[in-house]
Order: sequence, then structure tokens, then C-alpha cells
Amino acid sequence: MFNVLSRDAGSLAKTASLETAHGKIQTPVFMPVGTAGTVKAVPADYLHKIATEIILSNTYHLYLQPGPEVIKEAGGLHSFINWNKPILTDSGGFQAFSLSRIKKIQPNGIEFQSFKDGSKHFFTPEKVIDIQEKLGSDIMMPLDICTPFGTRGKELEDYTLKTIEWANRSKIHQQNDARQLLFGIVQGGNNLNLRKNCLDALKEIGFHGYAIGSLSVGEPDEVYYEILESLSSHMQDAPLYVMGVGDPEKIIRSIGLGVDMFDCVLPTRIARNRSLFTFDGKITLTNARFEKDFGPIDPECQCPVCKHYSRAYMRHLYKSGEILASILGSVHNLSFLIHLTHESRKAIQEHRYLEFANQFLYRYQQGGNHADT
Amino acid sequence: MFNVLSRDAGSLAKTASLETAHGKIQTPVFMPVGTAGTVKAVPADYLHKIATEIILSNTYHLYLQPGPEVIKEAGGLHSFINWNKPILTDSGGFQAFSLSRIKKIQPNGIEFQSFKDGSKHFFTPEKVIDIQEKLGSDIMMPLDICTPFGTRGKELEDYTLKTIEWANRSKIHQQNDARQLLFGIVQGGNNLNLRKNCLDALKEIGFHGYAIGSLSVGEPDEVYYEILESLSSHMQDAPLYVMGVGDPEKIIRSIGLGVDMFDCVLPTRIARNRSLFTFDGKITLTNARFEKDFGPIDPECQCPVCKHYSRAYMRHLYKSGEILASILGSVHNLSFLIHLTHESRKAIQEHRYLEFANQFLYRYQQGGNHADT
Repeated sequence: MFNVLSRDAGSLAKTASLETAHGKIQTPVFMPVGTAGTVKAVPADYLHKIATEIILSNTYHLYLQPGPEVIKEAGGLHSFINWNKPILTDSGGFQAFSLSRIKKIQPNGIEFQSFKDGSKHFFTPEKVIDIQEKLGSDIMMPLDICTPFGTRGKELEDYTLKTIEWANRSKIHQQNDARQLLFGIVQGGNNLNLRKNCLDALKEIGFHGYAIGSLSVGEPDEVYYEILESLSSHMQDAPLYVMGVGDPEKIIRSIGLGVDMFDCVLPTRIARNRSLFTFDGKITLTNARFEKDFGPIDPECQCPVCKHYSRAYMRHLYKSGEILASILGSVHNLSFLIHLTHESRKAIQEHRYLEFANQFLYRYQQGGNHADT
Repeated sequence: MFNVLSRDAGSLAKTASLETAHGKIQTPVFMPVGTAGTVKAVPADYLHKIATEIILSNTYHLYLQPGPEVIKEAGGLHSFINWNKPILTDSGGFQAFSLSRIKKIQPNGIEFQSFKDGSKHFFTPEKVIDIQEKLGSDIMMPLDICTPFGTRGKELEDYTLKTIEWANRSKIHQQNDARQLLFGIVQGGNNLNLRKNCLDALKEIGFHGYAIGSLSVGEPDEVYYEILESLSSHMQDAPLYVMGVGDPEKIIRSIGLGVDMFDCVLPTRIARNRSLFTFDGKITLTNARFEKDFGPIDPECQCPVCKHYSRAYMRHLYKSGEILASILGSVHNLSFLIHLTHESRKAIQEHRYLEFANQFLYRYQQGGNHADT
């Protein structure tokens, strides 16, 4: 199912393919986030054009609107949203926690209020699997407990044990092993021992892949890389997924540490907010220096936006508050990250990943120093 | 330049082709409005997919942002916005009036304050031609004075004479007759004599086409059709354009009265506001009855949205406040109107326009009676 194709000589970076019910994914891969069953402002045509291999959707949002029954009756999420490639759905645990004003961890699950209408709901590990089976996603995530940066001691330990227990219940409850993959989520906060124990326990239960949760939640970069390094060397034969990472520098560094899968709202969110990726750092399109800049957003980018539109036009769209700015900006930013993963694969196959990564990072950071963001 | 191809036996409806610097337009035609150099929420790819032949852009908006110099340096509006088919630009007179809190008609032009930043500007007939020459649109409109419904007496007469004088000055000032067409705009409010005199005077000056201004500005339908009928029989060998009409019923009736060209923000505006056209009347997509309606927006529609997406999904997108709702809804509504003009052309060629129009209107109105808008 997970087939490692090449390993870089100088790092933990690897290329692989992961087989799902809706086709194979090549890794390293960036997954655009389609929270409510649409990647914000990006029609599916464009996702295909920029070679998107898999998207992520949020169980929490789809559970509240339109509800799993509607999606099941539509023939599943793929059919409902017109997307015939793989979909990963998260467990909703993170959103139940981060989006609800009132929430409570119970022995059997998470109690929360809808961010839409305040109605009360209760997620158990079994219920979250049931919902994802109705959605029919290709990769499911079990209900887990996300710990904010700084959680420690007995509380952190208890939550981590609970995450393992719920992962086990999810695995037992899963009906349809062949059609839907199930990943485990490693918790344990900043405690490296706890993280390692959690990973070992999850491996013992056995999952199709392993995600690292509660990372990229505000911790310093050193802590992020320390946790990643402490875990990734133990996960060389299964897909390793770091949840919520969309910064180009972090993606490039994390691939070198063995990460295979990424997702984040960052590229589409900053695009709606006039910020676009280039190989020379991020640029803010409303800056006056772009008024008569008729070159593309990035001269080396091959995306459909850079082929047809100029910085001056993008600036004009942002200044006019036009929806097209969000559409084109999101397409470009997603394409930039997807292209980065393609270039990474090539470099890994040719055993020059570190050289590639260092060149990218040097230029991106240098550019960032002169940029206006 | 304007070549009448067929005339319906039972009405004033006709099909024709109009040659411009960026290709031929077939009429009757509906022109999507791209106010600020983009049809709101619709990427150019989709405009091509739904067979858009010409778009309209607003001189007023482009003059204020990004400014005519930027567009000229970009190589003109077509190049700036990546649209290689015909573009019609209006004169900005209507917007200078309707969008500005402070405006004043002077003997030589219109004084107004920018709706963006309150800065003061002055449009003369010559300046408006200069701007449109910098934009490089295929069809230009001369500065005119729009009269609100109810304007009468000496005031109406003076404004109409002023419109004729400015049209004459625009014609004299125009540099580039071969590349850019110039239309005249018939004013005269509800006074049929004044309207007819204005048309005669404009014909005397000689334009490539004639638009009827200050119609569809809140007057009762009877008045609209009365003014239209009083003018259209005198304009059978030049393009007749009614500005600001996008209602399917009005388009169908107006084609029967000899109108060749239409534009309006209506289809994209109501789409952003969850209202979509069907052959059985308008529907409001957030209605509960669509929750599990997995059929297309309109079963007979051939647009890319109806091919791939359901009413249930559209409802979900609108309820989730997703930008994709505006994108897909706008594409569908524009496609609906463009398709209507294609069907009209066929019916005219086959001398059955009235039958076609009556069938469409009967069904659209019947549907509307049951609809939920």
C-alpha cells in the first residue's frame, strides 16, 4: 500500500507512492485544504490543472453542514463535491476544540457546541469513524486530543493515553478496512518520551500511516524540529504526515527529516489576504512597486496564473476587492507548494535533496529579507 | 461592419454579425459585465467555456483604479485582463452620476467625486474618448447625461440636447475610427418625441451603433416597452443596444422588438446572493427543499456547473458562505442568458421567434409563480 520508491543519500527524505481507493498518491505531497468540501475560492478544474493529487476535508465542518446523511445520500463526498481523486478527512477533534467556545473532554469523547448555531454535540471515537465512513474519504483520522503548546505533566500524560485508547477503539470500530485507510495520530506535546511511547503504542495497534498532531500550533521552530527528528527516524516504512504545515521553508526542511504528507490552509488564506509565494520570498501584491510591474507573480512559476496574468493586474484586483484576486492568488500559492513537492521528489531520486533544499532556502530567505511582508 | 443575416417573419427580431478589432460578434448577444476588468467571480476560462463573445467594462472604475496609463502601458485592456475577444466600454457618465455623492453637470462635462477616496474629477466628452482609446476597447460609448425616471420638461430637453452635443464632440475627437467603434446613446427620458429627435440627430452625426440610455432605471414595464417600440423600428440596419437589461423575460421580449445587444450586472449579482435562473423561473438555493436535491440547477442546462454539481451542493456552498458558490452560480446564470440568446438566434433564423418567445415566457412565468424567490 505504501511503497517507498527512493531514499535520499544525505537525509531522511524519501519518495513513495500510497495506494488509496481513488488512486495512487506520490509523496512528498501537499494536500490543499477544502474545509467545507471546497478548497476556498478554487474550482476543481484548477486543482486538476495544478496537479493536485489529494485534498483534505474537515469532518467537523461537514458533520455540521450539510451533515453526513446528505453526503451519504449524494453517493459520498467525492460525488457530492465532484472530486474523483483521493480525499483525506481529519477527525474533527482539533476543530471541536479550537472552534467551539464551550467544549469538554469526557472519558468517552468530546462534548462541544457548534460554532455555527451553538447546538450541543458529542464526538466519540466510534461516531467520528461512522461519520467518515458516510463521507467515504480515502484516508480517515481517529478522534484525538490536541494539546495546546505548553500542556505538561499529568494532564499531558492523561490526554496522550486517552488519544491512544481512542485510536484503538477507532481501529476496532472501523468497518471497511479495504476501502478506507486509517492513520494514527501521535500526541505527547513537547515531551519526547511521551511522543515516542505514543508512537510505539500506535504502531502496536497498527495503522496505515502516522500523523504528528499538536505540532505547528505556536511552538518555537526548534521545538518543532526537535519533536519531528525524535520521531521520524522510527517511521521509515509508513507514511508520515505532519498536520497543519504549509510554510514553504518548513515543508522543505520537514521533507529532509522524513515527512511525506502536509496540509494547511495557509496558502489559500494568505492569498485571500494579498500575500503570494515566490522563489524569492513572499510578496504583498498591494505594494505600490507592483503598480506597473507587468511581469508574472514569479518568473519561474509555470502555473496558469503566472502564464496569463501580471503582478500589476493582481495588484489591481486586490485593490478593487475583486473575488478573482482570491481565486487566482489561491491557485498560484497552491501551485507553488505542489510544484515544490515535485521538485523535491526529483531531487530525492537524484540523491541531491540537501543541495536542493539549501538552495531553495537560501534564495527564499534572502528574498524574504528584501520583501515587503 | 454590421451585417444582418436573418429577420424573423413575425417580429422585429433579427440575427446579425458585428465586426470588431477583436473578432465578430453574433447578435442577439448578452455581454457579461466586468466592471473593474473582471467579470465578478468568473475566471476567463469559464467565460470561454460558456461561449461569451464580448464583455463590458466600466470606464469610470478603470479610470479611478488602476488608471488608464497603467492599462495603456500594459498594452491595453485586452492584454491587461487576459481577454482576447471584444470588449465594450461604457462612458462612465452613468457611474459618475450614480456612484458619486457629489456631482455636477457643467456645460463642458461632468464634475464628480471618486466613490473610492472622494477625490475630485472632471469628465469631458473628449477626455472620456481619450481614456477609452487608452483602454483600447472595441466599442466605445460617448459621455452622455443619464436622466432619472421622472425627469421632464425643460430639464429633460436641455440634458438631451447636451447629450447630442457631447456625442458630436466625441465623434469629432475620435482618433482611431478603424480600430474602435463608437456608438451613440439615445436619451430623452419618457418623452417619445424627444427620444425620436435624439435618435435622428445621432443618426445625422453617424455612429456604428445606437444604445438606448436611461431605460431599465426603475420605470414601469409599459414605459420601457413603449419607448423601445417607438425607437426600434427606426433602427433596423444598425446595432441596437439597450443598456442595463439582464432579466430573462425582458431580454426575450426586447429581442422581439429588435434589440441586438444587452448587458447587465444582474446575473452575477443575484448569483452572489444565492438566486439562480432556471427555465422554470428563478430559484433561491438556500431553500430547505434543495437539501437533498441531487439534480442539477436546471435539468436542461448544458453549462459546466449543471454538468458537475447538484442543487444540494450549491445549497451547501451558499449556506457555508463559500466563494465557490459565487463562482459556480455566476457561471450558471451567465451561461443561462448566453444560451437564451443562442436559442433566440436559431428561432429567428427559422422564422419562429414569437412562438419560441411565448413558450419560454409562459414556462418561466409559470415556474416563477411556484418558485420561492
